[in-house]
Amino acid sequence: MTTTLPSPSTTAGAPADAARPVVPRSGARRGAGLREVTLVDGFWADRQRTNARETVQHCVAWVERLGWLRNFDRVADGTTGPDRPGWQFSDSEVYKLLEALAWQLAAAPTPDLEALHDRLVARVAAAQDADGYLSTAFGHPGLPPRWSDLEKGHELYCVGHLLQAAVARGRTHPADLLVEVARRAADQVCEEFGPDGRDGVCGHPEIEVGLAELGRLLDEPRYTAQAALFVERRGHGRLGPIPLLGPAYFQDDVPVRDADVWRGHAVRALYLAAGAVDVAVDTGDAGLLDAVRRQWERSVARRTYITGGMGSRHQDEGFGEDWELPPDRAYCETCAGVGSVMVSWRLSLATGDVRYADLVERTFYNVVATSPRGDGRAFFYANPLQQRVAGTDVAEDAENPRAEGGARAPWFDVSCCPTNVARTLASWQAYAVAVEGDRVELLQHTSCDVRVALDDGGVLGLRVRTGYPVEGEVVVDVVEEPGRAVALALRVPAWATGAELVDGPTTTAVAPGLAVVTRRWVEGERLLLRLPVAPRWSRADPRVDAVRGCVAVEAGPLVLCVEQPDLPDGADLDLLEVDTGVPLRRAGDGAVAAGRLRAVPAVGGDLPYGDRPPEGEGVRVEVPLVPYHRWAERGPGTMRVWVPEAGRG
Amino acid sequence: MTTTLPSPSTTAGAPADAARPVVPRSGARRGAGLREVTLVDGFWADRQRTNARETVQHCVAWVERLGWLRNFDRVADGTTGPDRPGWQFSDSEVYKLLEALAWQLAAAPTPDLEALHDRLVARVAAAQDADGYLSTAFGHPGLPPRWSDLEKGHELYCVGHLLQAAVARGRTHPADLLVEVARRAADQVCEEFGPDGRDGVCGHPEIEVGLAELGRLLDEPRYTAQAALFVERRGHGRLGPIPLLGPAYFQDDVPVRDADVWRGHAVRALYLAAGAVDVAVDTGDAGLLDAVRRQWERSVARRTYITGGMGSRHQDEGFGEDWELPPDRAYCETCAGVGSVMVSWRLSLATGDVRYADLVERTFYNVVATSPRGDGRAFFYANPLQQRVAGTDVAEDAENPRAEGGARAPWFDVSCCPTNVARTLASWQAYAVAVEGDRVELLQHTSCDVRVALDDGGVLGLRVRTGYPVEGEVVVDVVEEPGRAVALALRVPAWATGAELVDGPTTTAVAPGLAVVTRRWVEGERLLLRLPVAPRWSRADPRVDAVRGCVAVEAGPLVLCVEQPDLPDGADLDLLEVDTGVPLRRAGDGAVAAGRLRAVPAVGGDLPYGDRPPEGEGVRVEVPLVPYHRWAERGPGTMRVWVPEAGRG
Repeated sequence: MTTTLPSPSTTAGAPADAARPVVPRSGARRGAGLREVTLVDGFWADRQRTNARETVQHCVAWVERLGWLRNFDRVADGTTGPDRPGWQFSDSEVYKLLEALAWQLAAAPTPDLEALHDRLVARVAAAQDADGYLSTAFGHPGLPPRWSDLEKGHELYCVGHLLQAAVARGRTHPADLLVEVARRAADQVCEEFGPDGRDGVCGHPEIEVGLAELGRLLDEPRYTAQAALFVERRGHGRLGPIPLLGPAYFQDDVPVRDADVWRGHAVRALYLAAGAVDVAVDTGDAGLLDAVRRQWERSVARRTYITGGMGSRHQDEGFGEDWELPPDRAYCETCAGVGSVMVSWRLSLATGDVRYADLVERTFYNVVATSPRGDGRAFFYANPLQQRVAGTDVAEDAENPRAEGGARAPWFDVSCCPTNVARTLASWQAYAVAVEGDRVELLQHTSCDVRVALDDGGVLGLRVRTGYPVEGEVVVDVVEEPGRAVALALRVPAWATGAELVDGPTTTAVAPGLAVVTRRWVEGERLLLRLPVAPRWSRADPRVDAVRGCVAVEAGPLVLCVEQPDLPDGADLDLLEVDTGVPLRRAGDGAVAAGRLRAVPAVGGDLPYGDRPPEGEGVRVEVPLVPYHRWAERGPGTMRVWVPEAGRG
Repeated sequence: MTTTLPSPSTTAGAPADAARPVVPRSGARRGAGLREVTLVDGFWADRQRTNARETVQHCVAWVERLGWLRNFDRVADGTTGPDRPGWQFSDSEVYKLLEALAWQLAAAPTPDLEALHDRLVARVAAAQDADGYLSTAFGHPGLPPRWSDLEKGHELYCVGHLLQAAVARGRTHPADLLVEVARRAADQVCEEFGPDGRDGVCGHPEIEVGLAELGRLLDEPRYTAQAALFVERRGHGRLGPIPLLGPAYFQDDVPVRDADVWRGHAVRALYLAAGAVDVAVDTGDAGLLDAVRRQWERSVARRTYITGGMGSRHQDEGFGEDWELPPDRAYCETCAGVGSVMVSWRLSLATGDVRYADLVERTFYNVVATSPRGDGRAFFYANPLQQRVAGTDVAEDAENPRAEGGARAPWFDVSCCPTNVARTLASWQAYAVAVEGDRVELLQHTSCDVRVALDDGGVLGLRVRTGYPVEGEVVVDVVEEPGRAVALALRVPAWATGAELVDGPTTTAVAPGLAVVTRRWVEGERLLLRLPVAPRWSRADPRVDAVRGCVAVEAGPLVLCVEQPDLPDGADLDLLEVDTGVPLRRAGDGAVAAGRLRAVPAVGGDLPYGDRPPEGEGVRVEVPLVPYHRWAERGPGTMRVWVPEAGRG
């Protein structure tokens, strides 16, 4: 074993293990930093590369073209006014881009990206008021006054994203201008909304995570306290009503520590929960942490799609009731996937419970990876599990309302998703490995080189190679030994019944959870994890009414789907059923099932209801299934994840 | 037979056979007038009585209390302004009340209601401008200018309802002030929007039916031509965009004569279709009539609930895609039910096809009758087929956004439904009987006295007695003979397999459609129709994904449902399944099925998906089913129309 790993000290700036989005103040477990885990190749390395090469520039071009960047210049030079383009939250897209750039620069710096980052920061900084206030949508001549629309104005939400961007910068680079801008903005928020200040919260949570993380970066307890105050203020009806949507829309119906389930707007609910975990961990508030864990349990068990997607309703982009999980009208906003990862990762660090990492994986592969097109220049906003009607292609230069026709769009009217995907992909490896004392947990499996500084000193170097998620073998070679006993833990996903761990001459059956081997590792030693990624049938709890009588196919962490182009010409996907008596056959990264296209049914008269007469035989077909994350890559078409099972409906 | 029927000549004013909402200019078939069909007792007589005694006054009190009536006074006395209360369409609630009053006065006049009608008309008339323009939301000092928001302003929509109210008055009473007000308003619309005028349409169709019907009343072809112009202008993208909703929202995406299916906002789509039929019939436009028939066929076959309800989406109160019919998120707005009756009745008159009357019946019993509470003072706005979570009671003096929690509400923020129910119930019998030459069709079965003037002279008097829809026997006695051969046709609904007609000593099996007996009827002769109203299982076309593996129970025209209060205490309706191997038992106006409460399932880990382990036995239960139209009369609770079938999911 002669692999040479980059030494942490060769990357300039902040220490290697600091480069991570979440750094709890308390608790022994930490995520490995971006520079401790180097992606080599495979599913996520490919996407991260495309993200850096294509998506970031694509997004910068759009925020420039639409004037959302120029909004900062106009504030700086005093020329803004009522004709300001963009929604009130357009500043946040710039901040999410800055965050993406910071993470990207930590893992693979280039002079071009560095210069781009600095140029954007300079334009943002120039728009900051003397007292630290920063917004292009409020508080300047011709615009509404500061804090005049807490319900819909998104002012604090934008500041939250600014702080997250600064945190990314400050953890990957010696503190510079952006961190200073963020500090001043945070101070201004604390001044304005502190215990003796304005008794309000933002209609869209996000300031909470931003303040908490900046407080961690700068070791400033005032920011943590302000985040805690925002969390506590919520749920008491402080926000005014929005037509047709009650206070649950922005989680202002029930205090966070009293709620049992997520409800209302999904992204709002999840960002809030993430901030609540941060506050709970940093202040040692076990009751608050338990509340979020309880909400996670019920929401995952009853309000989450098989893809990990959250949000069942278009009307409010929100959670539905328990068991309300329609595949066709699934909203599953990409940003809700990002928010879900934020919450689960924080809970994973706080508790060590591997189920949180399971959900992170499911959401990464089936929501976050589904949004961007292969070329990184078009995105899904919503991620339904069934497309009934093939939409039309979206023009490459056109904004799109929500890309609901089964075609990814280059940009949206409300364009939160592309930049959210960008910052998440840029920091993907920060969610892969956890460290606690002399224990290293490999939570996400991908080909990577790991070189973690152990908390008690010393370094463990690992070379992980795998064709996962398509192949089930994960090979872990020890390339640098810390010189004392270390526990190496490999996550065995919940679906991986029959997994095996090969350790030298010994093969052990390992159950879902963590497979842990503790010893004094010697360079050249190898662990081999075998995960059963063969395609398998999945069925839903019968209370999920919308998919009764249907099966889905999963392969490893991937949810598969049937796309109309894979059926015979002219076949109607609505008439397909699969025969689960015939074993699934693996095919590339997908599968093939046996199925039948039913004859067109005839039921009672004009309406599609009544006594059902006997059906014709239909036509037997092979049913290819492909990973859901790349559906519609061949153009708009019909699709379904859940397919009726022959003989059951 | 000594029944004495009221003679048409004893009711003052317009002729008895004129009292009907739809009077086509061409075509031999007409509906019998309100005064030709006298409800005696039973399902609809009860509701009509409650409507007259309770609902009308209830609505008047609300429009008075909220200032929607006073808006007219304020225009008249010049004191209106930006503080005007109510949505832009609040005038229409007053007009629909006037229409309800007119029909009610035709059937059962009282001095109180007559005085109420006149008082309201006087206040409306006082707000009319010198040139005929009439709106309390636009066109006066402090309000937006006339026609400044065709997309959302509802100005023409309101005028349409004014015209319908005047038509009701003019067909039931010698023309008086309201007809004159309507004539002037219609003239102003024709002036403004005529061929050489403003090239626009209203965001919400309704002016079309209003103009067409007023044109018929006043024999004014200009109004018909203007209605035709509005129909033709639509579908070419004249209306500006509404955020997130495309032009299909107001049917401005495809011209009416080119469209294949209803789409977008359901009430808009249905009112437009009704107006298009009026125009097609009056102008002899066979292509336009065929277009609406084609739209009806596909929309009924693929986009309609078993209740007759239309509208699958909350986001735009609109139709979903084909087969998108979720029971829990069914919108099925009450007003869409009214709109569906409007369209189907017009098509029924235009074509004689009995399937239209079938849908009218289904919609009457399961949508229109479902909205009002038994006391006529609270209403459903949406009519879902499944209630997952029991809501809370609605205060008797509080407006409600949409009454989505399974409790009827006294009034709504957008309160279109109560007054729409009122005008429809007040004119119910106008949809019961059709006449064509010497043929009389009994299309809706209820206890009533019928005395129709035949088109070729003479009168046919019938005494219809029945306990329908709970009982299946309809007894028709001839009480007045026209003195020549007349065809008497009784509708046999599509579901009525095994129906029989008893004619003296002869019993004949009759198929769904019309059972027609033609002869020279003699007073005292009797026809007896036996309809099989025993409860029956219904299943859906397998393409209706949302109810796969489920059954519904119908009894005659009634859709039944299971309500949580009828299950053992603490039973979870989500765990119920029924055993269709055990015959349904009739119980009052409902039924009892055999069923089982499943044990709480356990599936793969945290998410409700995975390999499903064997289930426990569960608990056998009796499953009472009650008519859907009276669900939630016992307070808010969970409910479902479609119940999982044991052994199928």
